[in-house]
Amino acid sequence: MTTTTSSPNAAALTAALPELREAYAALQAKGLKLDLTRGKPSAEQLDLANPMLALPGDRSRSESGTDVRNYGGLDGLPELRAMFAELLDVPVEQLLAGGNASLTMMYDTVVRAMLFGFPESPAPWSREETVRWICAVPGYDRHFAVCEELGIEMITVPMTESGPDAAAVAELVADDPTIKGMWVVPTYANPDGSVVSDDVARALAEMPAAAPDFRILWDNAYALHHLTDTETRTAPILQFAAAAGNPDRVIMYASTSKITWAGAGVAFLASSPANVAWYKKHLAKASIGPDKVNHLRHALFFGSADGVREHMRKHREILAPKFEAVTAILADRLGEYGVGEWTDPRGGYFVSLDVLPGTAARVVALAKDAGIALTPAGATFPYGKDPEDKNIRLAPSMPPLAEVTAAMEGVATCVLLAAAEALAGE
Amino acid sequence: MTTTTSSPNAAALTAALPELREAYAALQAKGLKLDLTRGKPSAEQLDLANPMLALPGDRSRSESGTDVRNYGGLDGLPELRAMFAELLDVPVEQLLAGGNASLTMMYDTVVRAMLFGFPESPAPWSREETVRWICAVPGYDRHFAVCEELGIEMITVPMTESGPDAAAVAELVADDPTIKGMWVVPTYANPDGSVVSDDVARALAEMPAAAPDFRILWDNAYALHHLTDTETRTAPILQFAAAAGNPDRVIMYASTSKITWAGAGVAFLASSPANVAWYKKHLAKASIGPDKVNHLRHALFFGSADGVREHMRKHREILAPKFEAVTAILADRLGEYGVGEWTDPRGGYFVSLDVLPGTAARVVALAKDAGIALTPAGATFPYGKDPEDKNIRLAPSMPPLAEVTAAMEGVATCVLLAAAEALAGE
Repeated sequence: MTTTTSSPNAAALTAALPELREAYAALQAKGLKLDLTRGKPSAEQLDLANPMLALPGDRSRSESGTDVRNYGGLDGLPELRAMFAELLDVPVEQLLAGGNASLTMMYDTVVRAMLFGFPESPAPWSREETVRWICAVPGYDRHFAVCEELGIEMITVPMTESGPDAAAVAELVADDPTIKGMWVVPTYANPDGSVVSDDVARALAEMPAAAPDFRILWDNAYALHHLTDTETRTAPILQFAAAAGNPDRVIMYASTSKITWAGAGVAFLASSPANVAWYKKHLAKASIGPDKVNHLRHALFFGSADGVREHMRKHREILAPKFEAVTAILADRLGEYGVGEWTDPRGGYFVSLDVLPGTAARVVALAKDAGIALTPAGATFPYGKDPEDKNIRLAPSMPPLAEVTAAMEGVATCVLLAAAEALAGE
Repeated sequence: MTTTTSSPNAAALTAALPELREAYAALQAKGLKLDLTRGKPSAEQLDLANPMLALPGDRSRSESGTDVRNYGGLDGLPELRAMFAELLDVPVEQLLAGGNASLTMMYDTVVRAMLFGFPESPAPWSREETVRWICAVPGYDRHFAVCEELGIEMITVPMTESGPDAAAVAELVADDPTIKGMWVVPTYANPDGSVVSDDVARALAEMPAAAPDFRILWDNAYALHHLTDTETRTAPILQFAAAAGNPDRVIMYASTSKITWAGAGVAFLASSPANVAWYKKHLAKASIGPDKVNHLRHALFFGSADGVREHMRKHREILAPKFEAVTAILADRLGEYGVGEWTDPRGGYFVSLDVLPGTAARVVALAKDAGIALTPAGATFPYGKDPEDKNIRLAPSMPPLAEVTAAMEGVATCVLLAAAEALAGE
């Protein structure tokens, strides 16, 4: 990840205000209807998995002979688990294949911690007066929404290029037993694209925590979602945690939502044997088992872990030009005025753009009035509140390249106009 | 539903003890390995939906043009919801199509009541000192397990041929605000096959309840699962509840687990607009949407509500002879000695057998030692405790007819032997 740092050229921007107003009026006149709000795959990407539309075809049994059309098998289909155990670098017996959403598995994890606690919890979390949680910012709005839904108080730490600021996290968790967990998107984080280094992962795995049941929810949503030919390997945090004597600290999640189909893929959970047993004990009251037909469909389509890797390279071919367009337009249009900082991610689904502090909400509003939908300003912070009102998450995956370009040219105009207005004291 | 009532002929049974011991030894010598434990569809039934193995084929868009391969649509696919709204007799806008398990939707409903309460709850249920729940017995073990998991105290009322004893229920809920809900399987109940009459449904919908947030979880798992040409219509309890001024009292569940594939089907939830909004508000924190590809697969396979009805008649052709074998063998073998009462269900997946009180656990143990797996005695009661130790749930759907026959001949031997032992004071 590279961040382009700059400082605004106030004089040039203020002078350009009339010209930027004209450019914005022209933008509005185009009557655009473009959307950069969510990290959705494009139709072209979804097409890559189209052979699955007719799978499993004439097959209805797993390799071991299980009828996938009938009840049972809480762990998920063994052959699909084996593939993803290799890809996620976890022992297969510690990996569950589930339903269509890793978000559901994360939500259920926290819900069950609230209602029942983890095995070593002094009490179910809902019985604690205060439960707090660490959120690196900027971060993923749906993570924050889970905490907010459950009344868990969120504390922020800064993101760095190597993941959450581990020293800040260690200091917080060392003495405060009300801090029960943290979110981490280790690889190509949402939205800043950072990758947790081995050093940061080891620090998080090893740090003393006042809460005996402190958990890291390790959302490896973009584990395999490379945008360059450097196929980053995720830090092996489960191994680090086990080696540090904290085997139950980390629960990993992943899914094929952005590998095959979004909302019709397969989600995974991996953790220590004790955590997996705990999860399954409660899962067994809610489910007789996941959709094994969909597991088989995926296993047949991929064939092997290498089949998944090969498939991801096809996604990269589609996605990389869109990300290049985003960063090229930002550099071209904002660079001249020294406005903004943005990420140049090597994977994942987002570009994180910091505009002139105090103008992010204005930029989003200007874009909206010009027919360009952006994620609401503040969405990358807990409670939707960006204290500096500067971060905007850009999601260029879904629209065709021409639309990404048109939208980003518009966004650049809005960023400059908002900055010029602010600097001119308007 | 017909129940065959009888009283045991003690003299004849005691006299037959040596002969029954020989019969049991002969049964053991056969080395059977048969299973009547769970209500699983047979491979032959699952085959009926095999065209779905290659669906949706070349289709990836809904009727309205939505790409089912991408995120979104928390309510589920409109065309599938329309079909099941007709079948379940509910307004389509009050029906959600979800994941692969109605059990998960029920569990999530109660979990969210515990954590958040319903809109009119004085407090989240987990904050109440005691939460109690009515369970008609015999009933479904997975329902009881949800209550037990969540620390909800279960109170039993008797089942009748027209559903739960409505007068007993009304008396319990009238004055006790700790009673927050009840389970009902309205059509072809698990395990006794009873069908809730319109009168009972109306009584449940209308009765005054001390708890303002009293809920009936109406698990219509066997709504369409007829075993005769009388295709029973489920009592329209949502309509009754709305007419009675208790629109939010009832939440209905259903699924295609025993229509298409068990664990790879589609689950449904229907209720009042307020309950549906409440459910969706929390669901939105846990999920971006259900597997719409599976929804489309089902919609294309069925074609229409009538397509579902037609499909269920094919199930009936496979299932009815198995149920006939069960009741014929029970009548033939137990009738002679006047031992046992059993149901003759007109739909659903179970026969409920009451053996001589005090011998159910012995019957299950004898059967096990002869290679015939039965649902554990007591499973049809909360906490697994049948106060009279007499009820056994028989699930004849999965084994082929010849195995059902062999298993039931063995079960009959075990029932008689256990009764003879007990009457002989052994």
